[in-house]
Amino acid sequence: MSLPEQSTTEAVAVAPKGPQIILTGDRPTGPLHLGHYVGSLRNRVEYQHQFKQFIMLADSQALTDNMDDTNKVHRNVVEVALDYLAVGIDPAKSTILIQSQIPELAELTFYYLNMVTVARLERNPTVKTEIALRGFERDIPAGFLTYPASQAADISAFKATLVPVGEDQIPMIEQTNEIVRRFNRIADKEILVECKALVPDIGRLPGIDGKAKMSKSLGNTINLGASAAEITAAVKKLYTDPLHLRVEDPGHLEGNVAFIYLDAFDPEKDQLEEMKAHYVRGGLGDSIVKKRLEAVLQEMLAPIRARREELAKDKGYIMQILKEGTMRAREVAAQTADEVKAALGLSYF
Amino acid sequence: MSLPEQSTTEAVAVAPKGPQIILTGDRPTGPLHLGHYVGSLRNRVEYQHQFKQFIMLADSQALTDNMDDTNKVHRNVVEVALDYLAVGIDPAKSTILIQSQIPELAELTFYYLNMVTVARLERNPTVKTEIALRGFERDIPAGFLTYPASQAADISAFKATLVPVGEDQIPMIEQTNEIVRRFNRIADKEILVECKALVPDIGRLPGIDGKAKMSKSLGNTINLGASAAEITAAVKKLYTDPLHLRVEDPGHLEGNVAFIYLDAFDPEKDQLEEMKAHYVRGGLGDSIVKKRLEAVLQEMLAPIRARREELAKDKGYIMQILKEGTMRAREVAAQTADEVKAALGLSYF
Repeated sequence: MSLPEQSTTEAVAVAPKGPQIILTGDRPTGPLHLGHYVGSLRNRVEYQHQFKQFIMLADSQALTDNMDDTNKVHRNVVEVALDYLAVGIDPAKSTILIQSQIPELAELTFYYLNMVTVARLERNPTVKTEIALRGFERDIPAGFLTYPASQAADISAFKATLVPVGEDQIPMIEQTNEIVRRFNRIADKEILVECKALVPDIGRLPGIDGKAKMSKSLGNTINLGASAAEITAAVKKLYTDPLHLRVEDPGHLEGNVAFIYLDAFDPEKDQLEEMKAHYVRGGLGDSIVKKRLEAVLQEMLAPIRARREELAKDKGYIMQILKEGTMRAREVAAQTADEVKAALGLSYF
Repeated sequence: MSLPEQSTTEAVAVAPKGPQIILTGDRPTGPLHLGHYVGSLRNRVEYQHQFKQFIMLADSQALTDNMDDTNKVHRNVVEVALDYLAVGIDPAKSTILIQSQIPELAELTFYYLNMVTVARLERNPTVKTEIALRGFERDIPAGFLTYPASQAADISAFKATLVPVGEDQIPMIEQTNEIVRRFNRIADKEILVECKALVPDIGRLPGIDGKAKMSKSLGNTINLGASAAEITAAVKKLYTDPLHLRVEDPGHLEGNVAFIYLDAFDPEKDQLEEMKAHYVRGGLGDSIVKKRLEAVLQEMLAPIRARREELAKDKGYIMQILKEGTMRAREVAAQTADEVKAALGLSYF
């Protein structure tokens, strides 16, 4: 596992021209964790220096399967914003926006629903997988099936050319581009812009239990705001090598979460390589490896936690940042919505 | 067939309290005709004295199956508005609005999509029939399947309590009320209002060719703005009684379009009854009946046409009416959207 900021791949074969615009974001359903940090946050901190970057708190979208707990979504908008700022996303460089506060995104979704068939939505592999994952079957909320149209609205509203996503989300990007092309054909004008998926080379960060995905619902996360004690406890429980029973036994690196995390976070690469060789040879106990990992994580997360705690004291400041970002973003989205509606003959006054 | 304004029935068993609010409207896909006049326009002219009435030019909705001819929809917004004013809809009494200019309607649609399942939409009998009618099958645009959520948005945005619809549209009203109840349960507050279908006792006006429905696509209409010559030509082609071959033969009234129209429009009811008796007895030629009908239609439509032509000279005035109505309506819809979003935890600033 290498540092992700130098290791993303542009997928989906369309070459956007000119300055690149990124749309990215999160569903605000819980605090962000190390998985988010490796998979996206760390990249965004880099991207904001190179690209125009919109980061969306997708609260409307989060409601799709959280209608029974709307308060959770509301609460986590601020929590996730705190995570963003704590890891170094700079509101002067990145535009942080709240999805629900930009009605033009719903408007674009509404029109895009006429540009995609039900059959096409049902064939979308990402939607299919998510439907199975959430156990919806025939009782899928309509908003869940139509989610690709909403995502196309989010991306195209900002004329984003690059969308950082995991491999599994590529069909969503393809569907967005289909809608973009369909719309431009109807408009007989290149109003909307196709986008590329920006897929990180690195895989997902596993959970502390060794499961493939770190996820709040699996209870196997280390949150970015974790206390020192929580980090200690998590490292203690960490899944390593179940075959490494005695210190003198040779250890295995594959699937060994301690080493995967060290690969991701330990800045001392040479020392790490020595440690790996020792572990594989035998004679290096898990406790030493974990001690090193704990030191690395404590050092990395301490300033993030401190900054997060500091920022959390002034909620008014956070809301001000969200308000300004949302207003800025809304101007862009409103401009696109105006262009879209004009092309559809929906301008009158 | 009786005058519709005294003969509508409230359907769907919910008793709205307090002053009644009507939402009604048309898809602006062509000029309105006698079928619209009998089925709805005439009623609206009455309703505006009794109720608060919103009349929606459903241009966004019309796009659902007119993506290949968006210009047609744009053009007909003004044409239909001219029809409204020409028949006596008073913009000081009724609020005429353009759907696409009220983004809050798309916003509400977006949220309501989470309150209805795909299976429920697919079971909607009105949607089923329309899908068959339009030959969509598996290639239904998503916007067509989700149209009931959009209709629920239109109705509930204005907190309409009465919705004039045909018998076949009652499932749509039921679906709206399901969404309203579902939302109010989530909100734990009576924010949205259930509505009743207001179903006219009279049936549909048949086309001039005798087909059950007068419809632009069937080419069997008499438009409200029809010229004198067009009226003459239409009456000449009118379907009467195919068994009534010689003047002396007894004639039949059932399915006889000339008499159905006379029933609907001839103000001289006694003379009409005599004429019917004579026709049934035998000895009354179709040409006499048609002459009477032509006189009735010419007299009824002449002032409507004149007013229409006069209004059409000042497009600026029409646009002003549409703009003011839309602004007034938008305030109401925005208020509802704010309440809905606040209840879902989507208020921040």
